[in-house]
Amino acid sequence: MNNRIALGVEYNGAAFSGWQRQLAPPLPTIQGLLEQALSRIADQPVSISCAGRTDAGVHATGQVVHFDTVKDRGPKAWIMGTNTQLPPQIRVQWACTVDDRFHARHSATARRYRYIIYDEPVKPTVLVGQLTHSREKLDVDSMHRAAQALLGENDFSAFRGSGCQSSTPFRYVHEIKAYRHNRFVVVEVEANAFLLHMVRNIVGTLLHVGQGRQPESWVAQILASRDRQQAAETARPDGLFLVHVSYPGYPDLPMLPLGPCFL
Amino acid sequence: MNNRIALGVEYNGAAFSGWQRQLAPPLPTIQGLLEQALSRIADQPVSISCAGRTDAGVHATGQVVHFDTVKDRGPKAWIMGTNTQLPPQIRVQWACTVDDRFHARHSATARRYRYIIYDEPVKPTVLVGQLTHSREKLDVDSMHRAAQALLGENDFSAFRGSGCQSSTPFRYVHEIKAYRHNRFVVVEVEANAFLLHMVRNIVGTLLHVGQGRQPESWVAQILASRDRQQAAETARPDGLFLVHVSYPGYPDLPMLPLGPCFL
Repeated sequence: MNNRIALGVEYNGAAFSGWQRQLAPPLPTIQGLLEQALSRIADQPVSISCAGRTDAGVHATGQVVHFDTVKDRGPKAWIMGTNTQLPPQIRVQWACTVDDRFHARHSATARRYRYIIYDEPVKPTVLVGQLTHSREKLDVDSMHRAAQALLGENDFSAFRGSGCQSSTPFRYVHEIKAYRHNRFVVVEVEANAFLLHMVRNIVGTLLHVGQGRQPESWVAQILASRDRQQAAETARPDGLFLVHVSYPGYPDLPMLPLGPCFL
Repeated sequence: MNNRIALGVEYNGAAFSGWQRQLAPPLPTIQGLLEQALSRIADQPVSISCAGRTDAGVHATGQVVHFDTVKDRGPKAWIMGTNTQLPPQIRVQWACTVDDRFHARHSATARRYRYIIYDEPVKPTVLVGQLTHSREKLDVDSMHRAAQALLGENDFSAFRGSGCQSSTPFRYVHEIKAYRHNRFVVVEVEANAFLLHMVRNIVGTLLHVGQGRQPESWVAQILASRDRQQAAETARPDGLFLVHVSYPGYPDLPMLPLGPCFL
């Protein structure tokens, strides 16, 4: 009998070559290590699907994956057991049985990312790889106002990384905000889905606005141009966290604080 | 002409073999790397004295050092210049010229440490090495009350690491508190000075109280016993930060937020 299991997964992407399994050359990826650990617990090969394939260096606190197995194991085995087989930079947070129609990618209606920036003169010596440093103080209100131009359904070609394999450049941004939290600046954005490097290209552009090098209206202009050459350079992966995936059809999935834990 | 320079230094101790310069075998220590970097900027050998020699794996946001040099360099050279010569886990935060009577260790009247604990079931995948994990939820109020037995001048033999070279087991604890801050539990303690492993032995003991395995009165009993065998195991270095050193004779030294930045 088949069991479909959904997992909530947190990881620190700084140590890995992205999400996707890589066999030639064999690089340490989150998918690869997680499948290896789950296969040991299931005692059979396990292959997983995820809600959002993150790039090298990008983190997650709210990644969701699913897999099928004939084995009957309780949530404790899938959480604690799997975690004993993983490096400390990857942790299963929760596990539950879902019906066969659940699909980590296809059932998801929205993804939420947080991008974390530190804008004091000297970069901290902790969280190296978990935040992006701006030597210049940021005008966060200005970034927030400028970002509102991206709300709704739009052609995001100007913020699309080359190599993006999506069949359409349209995405629906439900919410985007920039705010200070403790000693960090956070850019938080939720959309139905994202193009390759879309969050990092948006943040790279908003940084120019926050540092006063471009007016707030610049963001709307770039969007309208649909030209990648108009937007700023891609922001580093360091500060980017996938913090939540929405499954309105599955209201019983566990809901943890968005994270990361230091916010 | 001699210039005496004081520096504020932050570092992530996870990457290093403690504070103290080690030549045989040559291990990467904070003192060693900092002296190397400063010697390049001064263009002459520089040797430094610090306020508190931290153990391997222990961090600092408020370490203070001083050194002497015949070279005239502005604070910018001592900060930015030195930082270009350092790994990202060590950063000079401030620099200023002080009179010849200033001594980073001897002029200091108090040191303040923060020890950071995370007490959710699954350990976070970021800040690995920067916090200690308690699988059990902690009763922080109980820890706080128990800790008050350590206030004032006492013989801290029960919390003294073997190998401690101090001539006396007496220390004066000015303040000790346990509290929740965001998603962390913090034990914060200020004393005139500390014995070897004193903070970590106190925290190890308070963890037993917070986890309900020992009563609050246990801490006072251990202190009175003056017997290291009575106290709990030494807590890991991971969550420990030297956050401040007091120099009442030098009120003009820069004062930054205590840190670490994620609190």
